[in-house]
Amino acid sequence: MNAAAAGAGEYAELGRDAYALVEELYPICRSITGNGLRATLDVLQRRIPLSRIEIASGTQVFDWVIPPEWNIREAWIDDAGGRRVVDFRDHNLHVVNYSAPVRARLPLAGLRPHLHTLPAHPDWIPYRTSYYRESWGFCLSQRQLDALREGEYEVCIDSTLAPGSLTLAECVIPGAVSDEVLLYAHDCHPSLCNDNLSALAVATLLAQRRAQAPARHYTWRFVFAPATIGAIAWLHRNEARVGAIRHGLVLASLGDRGALTYKRSRRGNADIDRVGEHVIARAHAGSCEDFSPYGYDERQFCSPGFDLPVGRLTRTPNGRYAEYHSSADNLAFVTPAALADSLRACEQILALLDTNARYLNLAPKCEPRLGPRGLYDLAGGQAPGEFGHALLWVLNQSDGGQDLLAIAQKARLDYGLVARAAAALVNARLLRRLP
Amino acid sequence: MNAAAAGAGEYAELGRDAYALVEELYPICRSITGNGLRATLDVLQRRIPLSRIEIASGTQVFDWVIPPEWNIREAWIDDAGGRRVVDFRDHNLHVVNYSAPVRARLPLAGLRPHLHTLPAHPDWIPYRTSYYRESWGFCLSQRQLDALREGEYEVCIDSTLAPGSLTLAECVIPGAVSDEVLLYAHDCHPSLCNDNLSALAVATLLAQRRAQAPARHYTWRFVFAPATIGAIAWLHRNEARVGAIRHGLVLASLGDRGALTYKRSRRGNADIDRVGEHVIARAHAGSCEDFSPYGYDERQFCSPGFDLPVGRLTRTPNGRYAEYHSSADNLAFVTPAALADSLRACEQILALLDTNARYLNLAPKCEPRLGPRGLYDLAGGQAPGEFGHALLWVLNQSDGGQDLLAIAQKARLDYGLVARAAAALVNARLLRRLP
Amino acid sequence: MNAAAAGAGEYAELGRDAYALVEELYPICRSITGNGLRATLDVLQRRIPLSRIEIASGTQVFDWVIPPEWNIREAWIDDAGGRRVVDFRDHNLHVVNYSAPVRARLPLAGLRPHLHTLPAHPDWIPYRTSYYRESWGFCLSQRQLDALREGEYEVCIDSTLAPGSLTLAECVIPGAVSDEVLLYAHDCHPSLCNDNLSALAVATLLAQRRAQAPARHYTWRFVFAPATIGAIAWLHRNEARVGAIRHGLVLASLGDRGALTYKRSRRGNADIDRVGEHVIARAHAGSCEDFSPYGYDERQFCSPGFDLPVGRLTRTPNGRYAEYHSSADNLAFVTPAALADSLRACEQILALLDTNARYLNLAPKCEPRLGPRGLYDLAGGQAPGEFGHALLWVLNQSDGGQDLLAIAQKARLDYGLVARAAAALVNARLLRRLP
Repeated sequence: MNAAAAGAGEYAELGRDAYALVEELYPICRSITGNGLRATLDVLQRRIPLSRIEIASGTQVFDWVIPPEWNIREAWIDDAGGRRVVDFRDHNLHVVNYSAPVRARLPLAGLRPHLHTLPAHPDWIPYRTSYYRESWGFCLSQRQLDALREGEYEVCIDSTLAPGSLTLAECVIPGAVSDEVLLYAHDCHPSLCNDNLSALAVATLLAQRRAQAPARHYTWRFVFAPATIGAIAWLHRNEARVGAIRHGLVLASLGDRGALTYKRSRRGNADIDRVGEHVIARAHAGSCEDFSPYGYDERQFCSPGFDLPVGRLTRTPNGRYAEYHSSADNLAFVTPAALADSLRACEQILALLDTNARYLNLAPKCEPRLGPRGLYDLAGGQAPGEFGHALLWVLNQSDGGQDLLAIAQKARLDYGLVARAAAALVNARLLRRLP
Repeated sequence: MNAAAAGAGEYAELGRDAYALVEELYPICRSITGNGLRATLDVLQRRIPLSRIEIASGTQVFDWVIPPEWNIREAWIDDAGGRRVVDFRDHNLHVVNYSAPVRARLPLAGLRPHLHTLPAHPDWIPYRTSYYRESWGFCLSQRQLDALREGEYEVCIDSTLAPGSLTLAECVIPGAVSDEVLLYAHDCHPSLCNDNLSALAVATLLAQRRAQAPARHYTWRFVFAPATIGAIAWLHRNEARVGAIRHGLVLASLGDRGALTYKRSRRGNADIDRVGEHVIARAHAGSCEDFSPYGYDERQFCSPGFDLPVGRLTRTPNGRYAEYHSSADNLAFVTPAALADSLRACEQILALLDTNARYLNLAPKCEPRLGPRGLYDLAGGQAPGEFGHALLWVLNQSDGGQDLLAIAQKARLDYGLVARAAAALVNARLLRRLP
Repeated sequence: MNAAAAGAGEYAELGRDAYALVEELYPICRSITGNGLRATLDVLQRRIPLSRIEIASGTQVFDWVIPPEWNIREAWIDDAGGRRVVDFRDHNLHVVNYSAPVRARLPLAGLRPHLHTLPAHPDWIPYRTSYYRESWGFCLSQRQLDALREGEYEVCIDSTLAPGSLTLAECVIPGAVSDEVLLYAHDCHPSLCNDNLSALAVATLLAQRRAQAPARHYTWRFVFAPATIGAIAWLHRNEARVGAIRHGLVLASLGDRGALTYKRSRRGNADIDRVGEHVIARAHAGSCEDFSPYGYDERQFCSPGFDLPVGRLTRTPNGRYAEYHSSADNLAFVTPAALADSLRACEQILALLDTNARYLNLAPKCEPRLGPRGLYDLAGGQAPGEFGHALLWVLNQSDGGQDLLAIAQKARLDYGLVARAAAALVNARLLRRLP
């Protein structure tokens, strides 16, 4: 059963399945390197084929260097009475991600510079990282901080920062042509559900369903990588072959209750931008916004040296909801329905990309006869119906210069109708798809 | 007396003359081939010089084949009592155009599939054709059909479908240059006044008046041809020389009481599109619409293999009035005033096309002195008048890249004023018209 | 102290200084040639270095010829009783500029064709010229005219029209590059304050201040020349080197109480047009208008054979205030505050032009690391501030195709912030300015 045909019931079930995957991934402590990241990929790999690449610490990738690998076993703060006041076992966010190992006794005043809170949300734990500047720290709720008395504290971060590697993972599902659609999701954030377990779940189900479907046009390449450094490392390794990417989409924050948001590529008028806008604004009552160089890894794909046709799909964008990068981005913040809707939007975008080609009218001088080809069967003197109009539009506009979506929009006809007309004309040998 | 100068009184008279021509053509039974079509051209030829081409049945023209020639003598239905219940002598529309010959006795049930009515308009006879699928039929009013009793009927269609030819006609009126303006009207519809005796009459008067006028810039080529197959056959014969067509206009449905409608060419921004919009929207309070591949023979001229700069002028477009393709499109449906207004609009468009060239300023460095050339005679310190402004605009903008209409629109000046300024500057050898 | 940093107090003082210069120039009787013009340049030369060129009468400059030089000593009308009813000593405007010498006795009827008034403003004297048609005349108020009785009058215009020369003046202030910004003001009008002593004063102060400032990017070339013939003569002499003009601004009518008006160059989208619009519409709540071939000497710079990127800055444009070209354009019509505001606008435009280049990101593949370069110092997980955003925008968009102003407008960031970000990135060797 193909995506477009899947009914509301099927998507409700897919939403519950995606949510279950989020639940499974939530407890794992991820970072941009390390075993939590690998454990995450293990979970995905039970559903889809993944190939992995390990890139050694110290490798130069453009202006950046792969950092030492970080792993953590435990982290806590005990008060003078031996009571454990902060414990990494309670929440992955309690430790500043990439904290260097430490074991020390400190007065509260000495500890304070290492403690991070969100005063405006006194029950939430913030998410903080320190990938590129060696330091250590704890994140805790403002209430926890307020409860700390003056006195000596013992702190322990049992982590390692040592030569190792950064892990990239890919899942490639071949299509009829080797030209690719790139689907990218960052996989480095610890226990944060919307950002970005939601997109990991949606991407995984997308790949799962596509692998079972009959081959379609484009090859799909899913990339799971740590934010920023992972995208940069992937681009560095794949620089010679990014020309195969015909369309791309960064997937992020796909589980919250907000409406879908399509963010255009740097080009602003790439095919993915027109398709994204068409699907998100029309079918999903979402919104579209122009590219800006702040956000997720579209920043790297759309840097001026690459300028790839890569847009971004989120629900509420990063930084525009209070729960962002805090412990409140939890299992209650994302819903099966939102995950299902995001999955459906992805499938609609991808289905449209698959058929939305430029075509060439093979009988371009005057109209060809449609009647003898079984395409047009009316008593003379009467007007054609919608399908007849779609046939005339596709024939008239297929000069190789504009694609079916542009034709549908100009003709003010449903895209699906226009795509069916094009298929019928290809079948009648009146039309040829251009590469 | 030239077109632009003709006053309201002259146009009223021209409208009556055009209406008389419609009246003369109305009784003839036309089709896409045959003697009715030739008789129609005979009428036109009494007013304007026509050259005719006969294209033999069976000739391949692009994807199409010239059909057998159709001629009809009589057609009727008699009831069991010998009463003639439908008779072609009463109205040309009573027989399905291109009906094969038939002589048979049938029960009403057997006859019904061959009978066509317009239930929503019970007094009107529909117009139906069957050019490319051999069949026969009658068209009648719903009231006539309702009056038929069960029983046997005798039907007779005394027609011939036999090898012959399709007739094309042209009238060429030379101008100063061999580049052409194409004016095209379909001439195949039987007793339907708006569609398209109106345009035949307007085109004929246009040619008549131009032939008597002093030579103007472009050569005008009028083509009278059957809809679809005629336009296709004409394009097939003239494929090598369509490059001479600088501007073109399909004329149709120019007699009804609705406002004028200019339909853009497929290019959308051809000179004819800008001129058509300027004249129709400004001087005639009409409307403009984008090209679509449904309508009249602009479909063939604007097929992607030709993509000619051919727009269309109608009053109410086909299919947007109830009387369309029915016996209600009769002599009462068209008016002398509407025909006169259409003629006047055509003449305004053609006059504007004639002068609307790209010009080159021959003294482009700084302003030339206008005073010594008698073009600008003001005491220093005072502002120039409208004509002075027009001179400055034409000089400043005539870099060969934009035509007078674009200059007039940018300057927000009347086109006629700008054209007079250009003529004065040409006269003063400060400006040269580009081909 | 540079222009941008100058505070309101400093500009108030500058406005008073500019006004004093207008007062000093007001009594001089200027024309397009002659000693009044030279005396005017002497006044400017006491403040800024001027080089002068004298072009001999009779010299052909494109379509024009330098006229004879005009000088005037006295001009009056006496009535029959010997009473002096009009005297050039009272007001320079009393004589038609470029009047040929005359000494005659005439009845009032014979005198009338030589008398010019403004009936709608009975107390004002009009400004009239007759440069290119030899004649003579007087301008007077309607009240003066009404008071004249029938009878004989004696008229005297003691002027000379003789071979001499037209005077052009330039002040060049070098910048880091030899590419130029042209600043042009006409200097031929007699006692008219807004048109154009205002612009002479603003341009002079602009040059004065720039000459004292540290060298900036472009070389500035100030041209002071008579209207029309002077601009044409200057372009004729400088035809081979106008390619050095990167941006230009005609300055005129900068002292009235109206808002600033930027008039676009003929190109419409030149850098000066975007910068002019940005500064005038944003910082000065002024208005912008498209090029038209009527106005001041932008007509010559923007003639199609030159089509230079030269816009125009005025307050109320010529012809849109009643006082225009009359004795009411006097010292009361212009204000120190308006002169100060105009000067400030010019300096803002010029400062923006100086930094508003196209830049090239030298690390265009993915984002470069900003942290190690001291440009970006945030705990991971937090959003960048405005300056951080400006850095990201400049890096992302600096592909050599768009300038900082375009980037600031796309990013909806303050231009100054974006320019500071670009400077920091140049300093960090991540960005290079393109010529």
